[in-house]
Amino acid sequence: MEELRIFAPATVANLSCGFDVLGCCLDNVGDEMLVRKNNLNQLRITRITGEELPMDIDKNVAGVAVLSLLKRLGSDQGFDIEIHKKIKSGSGIGSSAASSAGAVFAVNKLLDEPFSPKELILFAMEGERLASGNPHADNVAPALLGGFSLVKSYEPFEVLSLPSPEELRMVILHPLIEIRTKDSRAIIKQNVSLVKAIAQWGNLGAFVSALYTNDYDLLGRSLKDEIVEPIRSILIPYYDRLDEVAMEAGALGFGISGSGPSVYALCRGEENAVKVKDAIADFYKDQDIDFQLHLSKINSNGIRIL
Amino acid sequence: MEELRIFAPATVANLSCGFDVLGCCLDNVGDEMLVRKNNLNQLRITRITGEELPMDIDKNVAGVAVLSLLKRLGSDQGFDIEIHKKIKSGSGIGSSAASSAGAVFAVNKLLDEPFSPKELILFAMEGERLASGNPHADNVAPALLGGFSLVKSYEPFEVLSLPSPEELRMVILHPLIEIRTKDSRAIIKQNVSLVKAIAQWGNLGAFVSALYTNDYDLLGRSLKDEIVEPIRSILIPYYDRLDEVAMEAGALGFGISGSGPSVYALCRGEENAVKVKDAIADFYKDQDIDFQLHLSKINSNGIRIL
Repeated sequence: MEELRIFAPATVANLSCGFDVLGCCLDNVGDEMLVRKNNLNQLRITRITGEELPMDIDKNVAGVAVLSLLKRLGSDQGFDIEIHKKIKSGSGIGSSAASSAGAVFAVNKLLDEPFSPKELILFAMEGERLASGNPHADNVAPALLGGFSLVKSYEPFEVLSLPSPEELRMVILHPLIEIRTKDSRAIIKQNVSLVKAIAQWGNLGAFVSALYTNDYDLLGRSLKDEIVEPIRSILIPYYDRLDEVAMEAGALGFGISGSGPSVYALCRGEENAVKVKDAIADFYKDQDIDFQLHLSKINSNGIRIL
Repeated sequence: MEELRIFAPATVANLSCGFDVLGCCLDNVGDEMLVRKNNLNQLRITRITGEELPMDIDKNVAGVAVLSLLKRLGSDQGFDIEIHKKIKSGSGIGSSAASSAGAVFAVNKLLDEPFSPKELILFAMEGERLASGNPHADNVAPALLGGFSLVKSYEPFEVLSLPSPEELRMVILHPLIEIRTKDSRAIIKQNVSLVKAIAQWGNLGAFVSALYTNDYDLLGRSLKDEIVEPIRSILIPYYDRLDEVAMEAGALGFGISGSGPSVYALCRGEENAVKVKDAIADFYKDQDIDFQLHLSKINSNGIRIL
């Protein structure tokens, strides 16, 4: 196999109760990438459409992710990478993760899969390190594994795949303002009260349990965050009203996607998700901010070969 | 039904990764209680053996727990309660919880079950409030529900029952020194670093997942606590050596039971648990501290009628 065209999905990290450890994979929102072997022993970004991003491999998240993979393998195989961005940078739905994860996925396939999907996460995290200064896995893991991922621990590094109840739908609102992950991390307090931390791990435990028991209402009740969202939500225009609008339209839960500004509403069933999406659109069209809206299933498989 | 004799089990709370939210129920360690209706419209503690505890119902955890139940019900039915303690006070394996939970369980049965087991938790928590100043549910919930319990949230109050993999065994060492829950809580810092909190909720999520997938090794790897155990373990003689002894003998994980001084080793299978128990006994007999050792299955049913 000489070249591969793939769909690299967007992802929703944190999911309120799982800051830095939880994420899930979207189905119909994502980039396209074309990765092709070359005979130049050289890694190149040959084309980027949809966004203005660095072509220099040391400054491009896909570049550094693939470099770390090739270095580990001791391979000097060259590749040309085309990135067709559909996910906007700074949207909070894993734009950098899609590029990093997609690139290492394709390169690994073209090299006859020396690494497992879980091993690829570590290489893709190098892209996240470049993007935000923090090699977090809660976007790249679900992009590579599909469904819901839980980062059990960073040292030693361990990621779990969790089940994904079939009727779940995600509605994503992306207000077209940019918040850089770096900035959004900077405002978080580095100490939390034990009481709030306990509330958080109670909710995360309940969320994981609910994924196994298909308890949709419990999933919704577990989507709480008293630590990060109260601070980050200040950066998101009309956050509290959006929460009300989504919940009144029947969403299971509502919160910030990744570091924002995108917000998500978790819904049960297509019909309810359409209703929630329409309610959010109806509210936000009256505000003075351009926006994108997505409605997606949970993607159980992660990156797709096109 | 005029009287009921019950077995009120000991419980292991926290389980390292689930401070204040997680607990499990033991099978062969617990108190016996005899509860009998009387015609005096009066609640009485008529006998206590095994420990010196207050007979005054306002000062006895079983008394205040039953009082709160009767008050809610608006009932003036009288009861005589006998408590035969086998679980030592201040052991860290839910001595007060056994009495509180046992008493409300028996009274509820004798009143033809006006309350569900989950509703009884709230009454039993009043006993915990008296014992430690903190109405925590991570002992009374597993005592009443059996198996593993997760306190999802205190406000609103919600407890989940989690599955209990069949081969699990608990080895409990109780060094015969007393640490009062109140004191053991007082030394805990009220703020934690976000980094440690994230590590904790990653492990708790993994623990819950492992209960559903019968992944014994993952259960063991999830039994980590960087927040509370490093502080509380200072109060427990030879804690670090015990940890090594248990893990070298093949335990899945090791930690503090509740607020200590008891420690637990979670094991897979009876044979391994016996090995771990023997190794701990062998080590601790050379120290200058009296101790009790227990080996128990996880009790899936909670309180038993005898």
